[in-house]
Amino acid sequence: MKNILIIGAGRSSTSLIKYVLQLAKDKGCFVTVADADPKRAADQIGDHPNGRSAWLDVLKTNDRKDLISRADIVVSLLPAHLHLEVAHDCIKLRKHLITASYVSQEMYRLGDEARDRELIFMGEMGLDPGIDHMSAKQKIEEIKEKGGKLIAFRSYTGGLIAPESDDNPWNYKFTWNPRNVVLMGQGTAQYLQGGKLRFLPYNRLFEEYRVVNVAGLGEYEVYPNRDSLLYKDIYGLEGIPNILRGTFRPMGFCSAWNALIKIGITDGSYPILNSGDITYHEWMDGYVNSRPGSSVKEKVANLIGENLNSPVMRKLEWLGLFRKKKIKLPNATPALILEHLLLEKWQLSKGDKDMVVMQHEFEYELGGKKHLTESTLILKGENELETAMSKLVGLPMGIFVRLVMDGKITSTGVNIPVMREVYEPVLEELKDFGVVFKERDSIIG
Amino acid sequence: MKNILIIGAGRSSTSLIKYVLQLAKDKGCFVTVADADPKRAADQIGDHPNGRSAWLDVLKTNDRKDLISRADIVVSLLPAHLHLEVAHDCIKLRKHLITASYVSQEMYRLGDEARDRELIFMGEMGLDPGIDHMSAKQKIEEIKEKGGKLIAFRSYTGGLIAPESDDNPWNYKFTWNPRNVVLMGQGTAQYLQGGKLRFLPYNRLFEEYRVVNVAGLGEYEVYPNRDSLLYKDIYGLEGIPNILRGTFRPMGFCSAWNALIKIGITDGSYPILNSGDITYHEWMDGYVNSRPGSSVKEKVANLIGENLNSPVMRKLEWLGLFRKKKIKLPNATPALILEHLLLEKWQLSKGDKDMVVMQHEFEYELGGKKHLTESTLILKGENELETAMSKLVGLPMGIFVRLVMDGKITSTGVNIPVMREVYEPVLEELKDFGVVFKERDSIIG
Repeated sequence: MKNILIIGAGRSSTSLIKYVLQLAKDKGCFVTVADADPKRAADQIGDHPNGRSAWLDVLKTNDRKDLISRADIVVSLLPAHLHLEVAHDCIKLRKHLITASYVSQEMYRLGDEARDRELIFMGEMGLDPGIDHMSAKQKIEEIKEKGGKLIAFRSYTGGLIAPESDDNPWNYKFTWNPRNVVLMGQGTAQYLQGGKLRFLPYNRLFEEYRVVNVAGLGEYEVYPNRDSLLYKDIYGLEGIPNILRGTFRPMGFCSAWNALIKIGITDGSYPILNSGDITYHEWMDGYVNSRPGSSVKEKVANLIGENLNSPVMRKLEWLGLFRKKKIKLPNATPALILEHLLLEKWQLSKGDKDMVVMQHEFEYELGGKKHLTESTLILKGENELETAMSKLVGLPMGIFVRLVMDGKITSTGVNIPVMREVYEPVLEELKDFGVVFKERDSIIG
Repeated sequence: MKNILIIGAGRSSTSLIKYVLQLAKDKGCFVTVADADPKRAADQIGDHPNGRSAWLDVLKTNDRKDLISRADIVVSLLPAHLHLEVAHDCIKLRKHLITASYVSQEMYRLGDEARDRELIFMGEMGLDPGIDHMSAKQKIEEIKEKGGKLIAFRSYTGGLIAPESDDNPWNYKFTWNPRNVVLMGQGTAQYLQGGKLRFLPYNRLFEEYRVVNVAGLGEYEVYPNRDSLLYKDIYGLEGIPNILRGTFRPMGFCSAWNALIKIGITDGSYPILNSGDITYHEWMDGYVNSRPGSSVKEKVANLIGENLNSPVMRKLEWLGLFRKKKIKLPNATPALILEHLLLEKWQLSKGDKDMVVMQHEFEYELGGKKHLTESTLILKGENELETAMSKLVGLPMGIFVRLVMDGKITSTGVNIPVMREVYEPVLEELKDFGVVFKERDSIIG
């Protein structure tokens, strides 16, 4: 295997490209980084002798096929809905494919074809999904092997800001796709508790959050994800009575976000008709005008049941929701207006360090006692470009490329990384990059 | 013009088909009624000498084109997303097209092509949209012609149940698309008040309803529609400071519906994972388990802030939400489960009469005074099949077919019925079918 193709040279690709370039140098092979923005791809390569950049409009079928045909392994960092075209090419041209995105039903349907051609299509090979699968599955297997009976599995991940770079009232900045952050939680969260399914709709999700202690960091808020049960069988947790996957947010975040939901400004389905002409102040006025209060700010406070100077109200004010400044986004949905506002307010400044926190809780019975193992990963970024997020999304894919090149992978078909031949070497090598889970064991009953 | 094609023979087609068959008899022409269910089409025709039924899978392009090619005028009662295929055929084959559905952006884009071929594509030619446009536009023109300056336009429509057939605690039954009723209001409602846009998100829509008096009937609740402003310019209301379009519901309905929203069971975006196995009681338990209360019912009452025997709780109980009966709908969204439950509870019984209520409010200044004109239509159905809804959706299309056949329509292109050559004869003929708006004029300042 001589040629690796990476499609997409955006924000989250830095660590991956760096790793793969080093790998190419060690092995005497070549890396092509393709992007719709040729400069972006070239910048990521620099003057590395084993790399070259390519311009690619991924919707141009012939160009795309041409690049893929010359590769042995393809890593796609495209938005999730574009992977499928690439996957079909990889089937036809017999190439391995790696992504960090959720594996769609359509992608799973390619499993037989990939297997017939002895190809591996590895999805969910980033952080969350990715490292969460690998670290959880490893621990679950370990507990089972020593005879433990799992009775609860809870897993939380958050892309946060490191305490030393935390300088705004929300204690939060964007380190991941802003659109997804704004739309987070829409739908119905489902999880298992006491053997029963629990449902939490969007309008109560950020009201009924829980507080979790992270070893060495303190308390964080957690709201449940929609997909807690998706991995029950894949993780080997059939019959377990408690499963919850959730997202970490800083203390105080959920109530403030819930205020935005209550006002109504996270709706991404319908455009605000005059959003090109009005100010943020007029926009807010439109939601609360008929309510009691002598100012827009007071009316909002009344609506969400807060005092004028409460921490929640200070967060809203800091966002600029009450400023008489034009929105200037014609025909934008509330969610889009909010995203643009947050993009400015929640962006990483020069030198800012992000921080990824992942914590698993495994409760199990062994030797007549109830045990709790907490397994915690805390990783900070170097700066606003070399983020922990980029490292943790990119390195697993890079390491997996190496494993495929070294002939270490026997699995074929469409997969997520829950097989030992994948998670053991990936988690082991990740330690060299400071990606270490710390464990706390305790007997709880 | 000798041949009229009606595509779709479902529930709402009865009055239309009856009207068009009579028209065909009078004029010596023919009506073809096509449906995916050939029996349904045949039943609508009966043994009428001027009608024939046809079997049509509308997705089969050749069959569809074949039928359309033999018609002069096509009336499509298909679900809205299927009209476009028919419209493209009508362009190619040079046929007029009539529908009762909202005109989509894609449909409007066919305007030039339709005009070039001297065709009329008339959309929104039913009740709401349809009769609402025609009756409002006629009155607006009348007020303008006598020199009045419009300062407020409010328009409400509801498909309700007649008082004599009202025998359930919700005071409501389905007389229209149940799916649309369950998903009603999702998004952000927007309307004009005091010259300013007002926004009302879904989570407050059924909380902040208003109460409107209907002459001769009494009080009804109204929630604002999403599209209040869509017709401002088309109605000739540029610059008006107050516009609101809304939907009528019986008193007490909105608070009870809001309870369903609060619990979380109107979400149509994500399936409930175990909906095939659990009972309604377990389903409700899943939403409220962690809340205070000694029973699921009490927990729900606490969540929505109601006493155990309040009118809202009695409505929920009557629906069967607390029954230990299996749902039996695998992988269904909450909205789908709710729809199935309501389909049974809210269906019209034999002999039931529905009732359509439409009320416009026009406020205008004339001669130094402020005037209010209320224009109200109340129409009851004959029975559970010959509904007022079917009459009011179907007759405008039927009458419009006659106008086109008689050469009375000079407009071409894609339109909605806001031109005088349409609304005057249609509203006039509707009177023969008992469709009469009553007016109340008063001076309010």
